[in-house]
Amino acid sequence: MKIIKVSDEKLSLRRTIESGTEKQQQAVKTIIEQVKALGDQAVLSYTKQFDGAELTSLKVTQDEIENAYEQLDDELISIIREAAKNIYNFHEKQKRNSWIDFDENGTMLGQKITPLDCVGVYVPGGTAAYPSSVLMNVMPAKVAGVQRIALTSPPNEKGELSPGVLVAANEAGVTEVYKAGGAQAIAALAYGTETITPVDKIVGPGNIYVALAKRAVFGLVDIDMIAGPSEIVILADDSARANEVAADLLSQAEHDPMATSILVTTSIVVAENVQREVKRQLQSLPRKNIAALSIEQYGKIYVTETMEQAVRIVNELAPEHLEILTEHPEECLAKIKHAGAIFLGRYSSEPVGDYFAGPNHVLPTNGTARFSSPLNVDDFVKKSSIISYSKEAFLANAEKITKLARYEGLEAHARAVESRLK
Amino acid sequence: MKIIKVSDEKLSLRRTIESGTEKQQQAVKTIIEQVKALGDQAVLSYTKQFDGAELTSLKVTQDEIENAYEQLDDELISIIREAAKNIYNFHEKQKRNSWIDFDENGTMLGQKITPLDCVGVYVPGGTAAYPSSVLMNVMPAKVAGVQRIALTSPPNEKGELSPGVLVAANEAGVTEVYKAGGAQAIAALAYGTETITPVDKIVGPGNIYVALAKRAVFGLVDIDMIAGPSEIVILADDSARANEVAADLLSQAEHDPMATSILVTTSIVVAENVQREVKRQLQSLPRKNIAALSIEQYGKIYVTETMEQAVRIVNELAPEHLEILTEHPEECLAKIKHAGAIFLGRYSSEPVGDYFAGPNHVLPTNGTARFSSPLNVDDFVKKSSIISYSKEAFLANAEKITKLARYEGLEAHARAVESRLK
Repeated sequence: MKIIKVSDEKLSLRRTIESGTEKQQQAVKTIIEQVKALGDQAVLSYTKQFDGAELTSLKVTQDEIENAYEQLDDELISIIREAAKNIYNFHEKQKRNSWIDFDENGTMLGQKITPLDCVGVYVPGGTAAYPSSVLMNVMPAKVAGVQRIALTSPPNEKGELSPGVLVAANEAGVTEVYKAGGAQAIAALAYGTETITPVDKIVGPGNIYVALAKRAVFGLVDIDMIAGPSEIVILADDSARANEVAADLLSQAEHDPMATSILVTTSIVVAENVQREVKRQLQSLPRKNIAALSIEQYGKIYVTETMEQAVRIVNELAPEHLEILTEHPEECLAKIKHAGAIFLGRYSSEPVGDYFAGPNHVLPTNGTARFSSPLNVDDFVKKSSIISYSKEAFLANAEKITKLARYEGLEAHARAVESRLK
Repeated sequence: MKIIKVSDEKLSLRRTIESGTEKQQQAVKTIIEQVKALGDQAVLSYTKQFDGAELTSLKVTQDEIENAYEQLDDELISIIREAAKNIYNFHEKQKRNSWIDFDENGTMLGQKITPLDCVGVYVPGGTAAYPSSVLMNVMPAKVAGVQRIALTSPPNEKGELSPGVLVAANEAGVTEVYKAGGAQAIAALAYGTETITPVDKIVGPGNIYVALAKRAVFGLVDIDMIAGPSEIVILADDSARANEVAADLLSQAEHDPMATSILVTTSIVVAENVQREVKRQLQSLPRKNIAALSIEQYGKIYVTETMEQAVRIVNELAPEHLEILTEHPEECLAKIKHAGAIFLGRYSSEPVGDYFAGPNHVLPTNGTARFSSPLNVDDFVKKSSIISYSKEAFLANAEKITKLARYEGLEAHARAVESRLK
């Protein structure tokens, strides 16, 4: 990792919009059109083509789910349950009430909160089949009160889904599970097929084809943010332990050669020790090649003279994950403006949040923490305004409303008001 | 308007995603590339080409704003101020606190709420220059605490913006105003130019070029939903007055030939009287041609046998605006699942909400009320999770976390946790 003494350069994680190649865009367009036109048949045919699985039905059966439980050891199942409970409990605190506000003149204005009817959750397959990701995407929908939660994931060549994914889906309260991946799965969720009833919103990470398909159906259904490669920024003073800092940086780097791990510290000693530790720990990692590539390409250590400078850098980077490893981490908290999740102190290592603590691990990447939030209960409800105007308020304000309407050239608006005055 | 006795057909306002023609898409792509490459120069050149205005600077001066005040009558200014105050007051009730939750073992989990740094508001020009729209888009950002609010709108041939827009912008607390429209304005807000510092989110309605440009920059910045044509559904029983119902339907129809006005009623008498009234009132409207086209193409009256059927239709349509004109409108409220704004009773005619009551008039269109909300304060803040795990909680759960990490094949995650156990 390169150590950089911080200058006044403007830093940014913000890269470009992932829009794929012309060929990928065209492929996704064709897949969506085929699924719209041919339904299940198209999805089954793409599943054979891309996943190598010959299926007769897209739907996962109760038997398959029961079978999945038998393939996992009991301890793991009970850990999944405990994680699910923690995630549920945290997200429950995000729930909001509908409210109404009363004016003495009799007018009532308010906001009604209603869960979405149905949501689709995409779960990547292959080596990236993560039960934790299932829990994190499904539980907020469950807490929100979504009745129908459809999960879809690409099968392996034998036509099976990962048992961990199936168990997590069942524990999280998914109501239906499908074997479909890629753009064809997104199209099926958005437009529906004979087997899959269309949903109102699609969440969950995926490869470039999934991302392009989500972008293409956005508007017909809602989508979550399109996730980029993962990143961590660690803010440390001289109290931080280099071996722990290095281990946390590497836990990010092992995800993806495109992942970014950055240390920002006021201590040149910590910087140098972390640099050494990263090199040392890297050697024995099973995913050494991935992590090494990530560290080499995107890993950086910024050394600043003051904590203010360090915090400024953090805000410019707007990281997905931020660990604060300083003597008094709470002191920085008020100054952090942009970060997906903030981990305070050495016992809040990122994996604690990735798996278990309760807050969501679906977080804004690529500097989008400037304007995006962790996946949360609000993503699975919508609001409706309530307007109950009293006669008194109406009569007092009718003339003002008609004047504004007429200034905007909308005569019928003015007359709608005046029809009540007759 | 056609009267339809309701069958069991599945109704939907959901049309297709507005994706423009190939030519429009290409034009937008080119414009964005040019603005990225050439900045102000490209924006100025497109402004000459599309708006016919030769500008030397994009920025509206303080003089121009003061001049706008002189062009509006004082009464109108004071109405704009009162509307702004009402909108501010309603949206203030949407504000949420950051929160933190304490566990007895010392763990603290929470959610920090932070306003976005900077937001861009697009305001259409020409005949559709609406001060009310400025207030509705800007006030929630103001309430949220956004420091920089940049408004942009296409100038007329003389290089001027509408005085109503300028006054509303100033009253709402916009911090900078630019003369730029179309895709070039969206590109300038997203990528920045010499004059315009890039923003984090872009809101506001626009034509197809604006919509395509917003879709193209989505991800680099956040955007609000892409607005479609406006719609109203009125739910009425035999207590509704036909002339008021008709006037409200027409106030929607005058917006746009693509606007949709639908009456759902349990009363055939009301249905027939409204049909007659719409025809009659239409004759004398200044925007008669637009409204007639809208009514002819999209206007419908559904007559149902029961109120339950009527409510089911409303939920299937998921309208942007819903007026409930029944004897006891509150009784239906619990059953309405999908609607952008719900207007209760005859004194809550839609224009009351469009202009004055306080709730936002930027609402989900085209059936997207199934999953989208009125523009609100949440759209201008983001959340960050806070995770402060205690030593006690960490030691109690470390093994579970490492087991999950290893099941997912993420060894470095497990080792990050274990580095704290040494």
